[in-house]
Amino acid sequence: MDQKAFQDYYPDELNYCYGCGRLNEQGLRLKSYWDGEETVAIFTPRPYHIAIPGYVYGGLVASIIDCHGTGTAAAASYRSQGREMGTEPPLRFVTASLHVEFKRPTPLGVPLEVRGKVKEIKGRKVVVSARLSAAGEICAEGEVVAVQMPENMKPRTRSS
Amino acid sequence: MDQKAFQDYYPDELNYCYGCGRLNEQGLRLKSYWDGEETVAIFTPRPYHIAIPGYVYGGLVASIIDCHGTGTAAAASYRSQGREMGTEPPLRFVTASLHVEFKRPTPLGVPLEVRGKVKEIKGRKVVVSARLSAAGEICAEGEVVAVQMPENMKPRTRSS
Repeated sequence: MDQKAFQDYYPDELNYCYGCGRLNEQGLRLKSYWDGEETVAIFTPRPYHIAIPGYVYGGLVASIIDCHGTGTAAAASYRSQGREMGTEPPLRFVTASLHVEFKRPTPLGVPLEVRGKVKEIKGRKVVVSARLSAAGEICAEGEVVAVQMPENMKPRTRSS
Repeated sequence: MDQKAFQDYYPDELNYCYGCGRLNEQGLRLKSYWDGEETVAIFTPRPYHIAIPGYVYGGLVASIIDCHGTGTAAAASYRSQGREMGTEPPLRFVTASLHVEFKRPTPLGVPLEVRGKVKEIKGRKVVVSARLSAAGEICAEGEVVAVQMPENMKPRTRSS
C-alpha cells in the first residue's frame, strides 16, 4: 500500500477540508488509499461524535463517505488518465450529490472502515459507491457523485 | 415563535447528538423551530468548517440537513398526533436515509438557514425535504427519511 494517502497529494491551498484536509488542524483528516480496485479508509470517531450514547452520529458517517468519495474520484481520475497522483495539473473533486442509507446503528468506540468503488467515470464526473462497516458489519451504504472542482470555486479569503 | 427548540424537548438520555444535542458540549447544537407549516434552523459554521478556504465543507451541510430533518420529523409527528412536544411517550427519530444535492458552493462566514417541509408522515416514518441557503441563495437541497427510533437503539455504555 502506498504510504501516502490520496489526500496527501492535494495541493496545499486545497488541503484545508474539515473532513480530510491535511492542513486543517481541527479536522478529521481522513486518509484514503487504494486496495486493488477498491479504495479504503479507516477512521475512529471521537468520543463526542455521538448520535445517542454508544452510537456514531449520522452526520459523521455521511462526512466520511463524502470525503472518501471525492478522494476516490481524484485517485480514479488520475489512474484513468495514466497519471501519477500529485502530477500537474491537479485533479481535485467536490461533491455534486451525496446519498447515504443507514442500515443499522453504527457503534461508537471501534474503527470504522469505508470502502469505495468507482461506478462511472465520464469527463469531469465520477460516481463512487461506498459502504461503511464497523466490526465487520455494514452500517451504511452510500453514493457520491463527484465533479472536478469548478473554476468559480477557487480558494477565497474574506478580503477577496 | 416558541422559545424552546425541538431539540430542547428531546429526553435527556437522547440529547447527546453531536449535531443537535443540547447536552453535547463539543457539538453543533442545532436548534430547529416551527415557522408556520415549515421548520427553520439557523447555524453559523465555525471558521474551521472549511471545504476549501472560503467555503463550507459538505459534510457539515449534510449534518445540518440531517439533524434538522430528524428534528422536523419529531415535531411533525407530535403535531400530527395533536400532542405538545415533550409529552410522554417521547417521539425521537433517527435517519434511515439522507440525500443532499449541492447546488452551489456554500460561503463560509455567514449564517446558514435550513428550512424543512414535511412531505409524508406514515406510521413511524416521516419524509422531510430541506433546503439550505446562505445570504438568500439556495446552496443545497436535501431529503431526510426519518424513522422513529428503533427499540434496539437505546442508549448504550461501554459496559452494557
